[in-house]
Amino acid sequence: MPLPDFEISSQHLQSWIEECFSFARRGEVASYIPALRSVPKGILGVAICDLNGEIVEAGDSDYNFTLQSISKVMTLLLALEDHGPYAVFKRVGMEPTGDPFNSIVKLETLKPSKPLNPMINAGAIAVCDLVNGRTADEKFQRIVDFVKRLANTSEIILDSDVYNSEMDTGHRNRALAYFLKDVDVIRGDVEDTLEIYYRQCALKVTCRDLAFIGAALANDGQVPGNGEQIVKPEYCRIAKAFMVTCGLYDGSGEFAIKVGIPAKSGVSGGILASVPHEFGIGVIGPALDDKGNSIAGVKLLERISNHWNLSIF
Amino acid sequence: MPLPDFEISSQHLQSWIEECFSFARRGEVASYIPALRSVPKGILGVAICDLNGEIVEAGDSDYNFTLQSISKVMTLLLALEDHGPYAVFKRVGMEPTGDPFNSIVKLETLKPSKPLNPMINAGAIAVCDLVNGRTADEKFQRIVDFVKRLANTSEIILDSDVYNSEMDTGHRNRALAYFLKDVDVIRGDVEDTLEIYYRQCALKVTCRDLAFIGAALANDGQVPGNGEQIVKPEYCRIAKAFMVTCGLYDGSGEFAIKVGIPAKSGVSGGILASVPHEFGIGVIGPALDDKGNSIAGVKLLERISNHWNLSIF
Amino acid sequence: MPLPDFEISSQHLQSWIEECFSFARRGEVASYIPALRSVPKGILGVAICDLNGEIVEAGDSDYNFTLQSISKVMTLLLALEDHGPYAVFKRVGMEPTGDPFNSIVKLETLKPSKPLNPMINAGAIAVCDLVNGRTADEKFQRIVDFVKRLANTSEIILDSDVYNSEMDTGHRNRALAYFLKDVDVIRGDVEDTLEIYYRQCALKVTCRDLAFIGAALANDGQVPGNGEQIVKPEYCRIAKAFMVTCGLYDGSGEFAIKVGIPAKSGVSGGILASVPHEFGIGVIGPALDDKGNSIAGVKLLERISNHWNLSIF
Amino acid sequence: MPLPDFEISSQHLQSWIEECFSFARRGEVASYIPALRSVPKGILGVAICDLNGEIVEAGDSDYNFTLQSISKVMTLLLALEDHGPYAVFKRVGMEPTGDPFNSIVKLETLKPSKPLNPMINAGAIAVCDLVNGRTADEKFQRIVDFVKRLANTSEIILDSDVYNSEMDTGHRNRALAYFLKDVDVIRGDVEDTLEIYYRQCALKVTCRDLAFIGAALANDGQVPGNGEQIVKPEYCRIAKAFMVTCGLYDGSGEFAIKVGIPAKSGVSGGILASVPHEFGIGVIGPALDDKGNSIAGVKLLERISNHWNLSIF
Repeated sequence: MPLPDFEISSQHLQSWIEECFSFARRGEVASYIPALRSVPKGILGVAICDLNGEIVEAGDSDYNFTLQSISKVMTLLLALEDHGPYAVFKRVGMEPTGDPFNSIVKLETLKPSKPLNPMINAGAIAVCDLVNGRTADEKFQRIVDFVKRLANTSEIILDSDVYNSEMDTGHRNRALAYFLKDVDVIRGDVEDTLEIYYRQCALKVTCRDLAFIGAALANDGQVPGNGEQIVKPEYCRIAKAFMVTCGLYDGSGEFAIKVGIPAKSGVSGGILASVPHEFGIGVIGPALDDKGNSIAGVKLLERISNHWNLSIF
Repeated sequence: MPLPDFEISSQHLQSWIEECFSFARRGEVASYIPALRSVPKGILGVAICDLNGEIVEAGDSDYNFTLQSISKVMTLLLALEDHGPYAVFKRVGMEPTGDPFNSIVKLETLKPSKPLNPMINAGAIAVCDLVNGRTADEKFQRIVDFVKRLANTSEIILDSDVYNSEMDTGHRNRALAYFLKDVDVIRGDVEDTLEIYYRQCALKVTCRDLAFIGAALANDGQVPGNGEQIVKPEYCRIAKAFMVTCGLYDGSGEFAIKVGIPAKSGVSGGILASVPHEFGIGVIGPALDDKGNSIAGVKLLERISNHWNLSIF
Repeated sequence: MPLPDFEISSQHLQSWIEECFSFARRGEVASYIPALRSVPKGILGVAICDLNGEIVEAGDSDYNFTLQSISKVMTLLLALEDHGPYAVFKRVGMEPTGDPFNSIVKLETLKPSKPLNPMINAGAIAVCDLVNGRTADEKFQRIVDFVKRLANTSEIILDSDVYNSEMDTGHRNRALAYFLKDVDVIRGDVEDTLEIYYRQCALKVTCRDLAFIGAALANDGQVPGNGEQIVKPEYCRIAKAFMVTCGLYDGSGEFAIKVGIPAKSGVSGGILASVPHEFGIGVIGPALDDKGNSIAGVKLLERISNHWNLSIF
Repeated sequence: MPLPDFEISSQHLQSWIEECFSFARRGEVASYIPALRSVPKGILGVAICDLNGEIVEAGDSDYNFTLQSISKVMTLLLALEDHGPYAVFKRVGMEPTGDPFNSIVKLETLKPSKPLNPMINAGAIAVCDLVNGRTADEKFQRIVDFVKRLANTSEIILDSDVYNSEMDTGHRNRALAYFLKDVDVIRGDVEDTLEIYYRQCALKVTCRDLAFIGAALANDGQVPGNGEQIVKPEYCRIAKAFMVTCGLYDGSGEFAIKVGIPAKSGVSGGILASVPHEFGIGVIGPALDDKGNSIAGVKLLERISNHWNLSIF
């Protein structure tokens, strides 16, 4: 596989953004809370970070957006570091699901009751409960610090409008969390766990941050550029495996076929992608397809993957 | 159908209690909260009330127990009085379900999302939200007053141990309620609605109370003995129809076949039964079968029904 | 409850038919096979048979139509006579279901796998397998003879167009039957069982026949007029209990509330109704509501029930 | 990633076989048909084929077993060659499922009804219906010829005992197929389609054959050694993506995490694996874990993957 030539990639990225820009019109921004509803559809940005920490970017790559479901990857990594795979996978499964990301059905129909994987909401909420810390604040602070280290930045803040709005109206996730409490998957306080979950979803990042995190994953847990080992290589592989089997909601299988790169999307329109041993990619495009993935962002990743033949398959 | 001869029925009742007593050994008292777990298995009582308000009783007919799911019948009647069937059945369906009483699956799989009927937990919680009143306290007080009038008693009190215990540990019902909030079936505050629901479940009654309520239903809403019309006849018929199609959890169909009397059971081991145009029956027997119905109580009702040929079919 | 005055009921029936006629316009005739699709929507007929075998009728009461799902009642009765309740209910359950009549979901999700009741297609197919007889022909002939005796007629023939059409295109029922074979609920040959099932569905009757059958059920299994005991009383009660809890597909609960009479509908637009200890009613009205029940036929039964206060609740 | 040194790999393979051999004791051979039940548990074999067609092998690598579900990969490739992805994915989805391989639930609950992917039974049966050919024989012959070309062998024969046994007792698959016919996913004759499906499952191969097929997939559709392009590269990527997201039944996610190699298992105990751009692996070990995958075979692949660092993540 020829390595991408970064001298030319910035031009490539710019031309692909222009090509993919039009797809945004066919999608809709998330509308379940006002803070997301007001985001302009036309934003499209991308950043690529290689294993040396060099970043190439184009479009709205400095636009700030909330992590949303992308945070599930980082919290999983932290829980794995805190407890190891055996303890984590006693609470949450390893299998993809054909059900929607916020589905509650399998919690009732499967025995013993356990979220199928940590990328669906039920699983991610269970993982939040696992993060070490004496209080919700301490747990959350550990998540923030971990994300900052992975993204190599000191500037990750909380969007309190988004947080408050989701905390107030997130009845479905609250239903999932109380069900998990009932079946003893959540051991701590349910409201504390939801607070951590919604806070991590409301952390603000840019494409550059995501690209850097993706590169750390691609680099088996070593910080691109400085080589510090933040996460164990096997935990990074676990994360990338989940990103392939269930990183794009009900569109994960199609994305694996068409793009073939481990990735995790969020309803803010962000996508974190990681090409193993090559580089990380961050994308933002708030207009979503009917599965909740950035419509232009997916197209952009498809162009990038096809051009440089990045599919892992 | 020959009317029961009440002169002899007390002897009958006593002998049947002795016969059915042994079945209690095969069941188990509800154990999900300590307050229920400590109840002795050996209790068995029955009371029958005719349309004149005359009561015949035997066994532990003055034993106090909590209404639990039996309260669903009375709150449904009150909501019907408050809003009429059209408004009530916009929020909750009229159909029996093959799923467990606390199932959440169909709330997700049916569109639009609506509890299938008011006898399953989701439906009963939705009905609590419908009862008129400016506050949770006022709503609950109206329910208590309504139950007192139906039972012709001034002495119905709350078991605060049971209430506190269920309010603290009722995570599954909390999951149902937040799901209902998410799909806009619950319009008020979720915690308020749960408070009302758990309070009505923790109201203490005796078999005599249940027999009197059953007689009021049998009498198309007129108080036995004094003739006051408390509930509209058509609402009583609605309640009795639900008691047949879904009054005994997953055992409703079998009960309809074997006993054939409209009835509603609760996990405390109580059963409210109503033979249309004949009389009401109250039963208590805390040991439950695997479907959550009083094991000796069901047997007792089967004897009574067969002896006097009370099946409505 | 005042007994209907049959001198005047024919006029009543005629006027109600005129009133309910207009509802047919809002429904649609079954269209899944050509033979049913060609039936005129405007047909509406009714017959009432008392326990002496006296029949009053109005409208298209001599119109011939196929039994379809109504046949499930008679085959259940025959299987009960052949094997008794214990053996029958080892193969098929006693509980209503919130799922569609042709649903396959619960066969997979419930353990052990067993159709929830004999009124849904899976249950009825299982019951066909139970009917005594060395061959499919012999089994079917026994069903025909049994229906003839119940309907007090020698003229019940098969609509071979309907039979052939359903046998050719009934892929969904074939799926149910093979699933039942897989879980050992069907013991005989699957294709034989389906042949019996589709044949019984294609038997042609009139409202008069259904009224007579309904009267036999109301009369606890004795032939109206001649007193011959064809079916045991307890089996008739079982049938009437199922007719209430699951006789009108997903509309059974609503029908119990609004009409309150044990009844079984078929997609041909026929309805068999039985008022315990009073009389039988047969209705035909091919235009169906969205649940598959005769739209004008249900309205007609509602008028009849309300006028004479026939609800069993 | 260092390329494996094949001089030493044969020794490696042999030592790993000895290590993994003991795991077979914990599993059970498939028992749903007599022909599979009689297979000895102790068999364990492996073959690795590089992109030049060189094969290294150890253990029972010449043992003959039936393809079973492994055939799903080849028939998918043939259907893609026959019709292209657009036509194929109109009939079958691209998404993994959390349900069992033979589940029928989602065919009813998802609208429009479509098997979630071509690796579950429903999807594979639908794919058989898509293969070009005027008759079932012709379709099947095209599949056999295709498998022979991929495996670079002229000696692939049908195990008629296995075929007859599955054709006679495969009621569950028959249920799936008739359901698919009902929802118009299968367009041809159902029995013909099942015949093709069961025949392809009963084709006999060795580990060497699977290794060669895996190498062809790894080589983007070119025959290892001679370079002939049999399948388009993008179709091979599609197959490998499905092998990761749903190749090992309910254990696909765990396998992706622990082994990280595209693979497809069958209940005969065979596993086809393909390391993109590296080599193909064939494994046989008839004792299965509770998910239906070769218990020793999975362990063997885990050793191989870890030793040479073959995970694609």
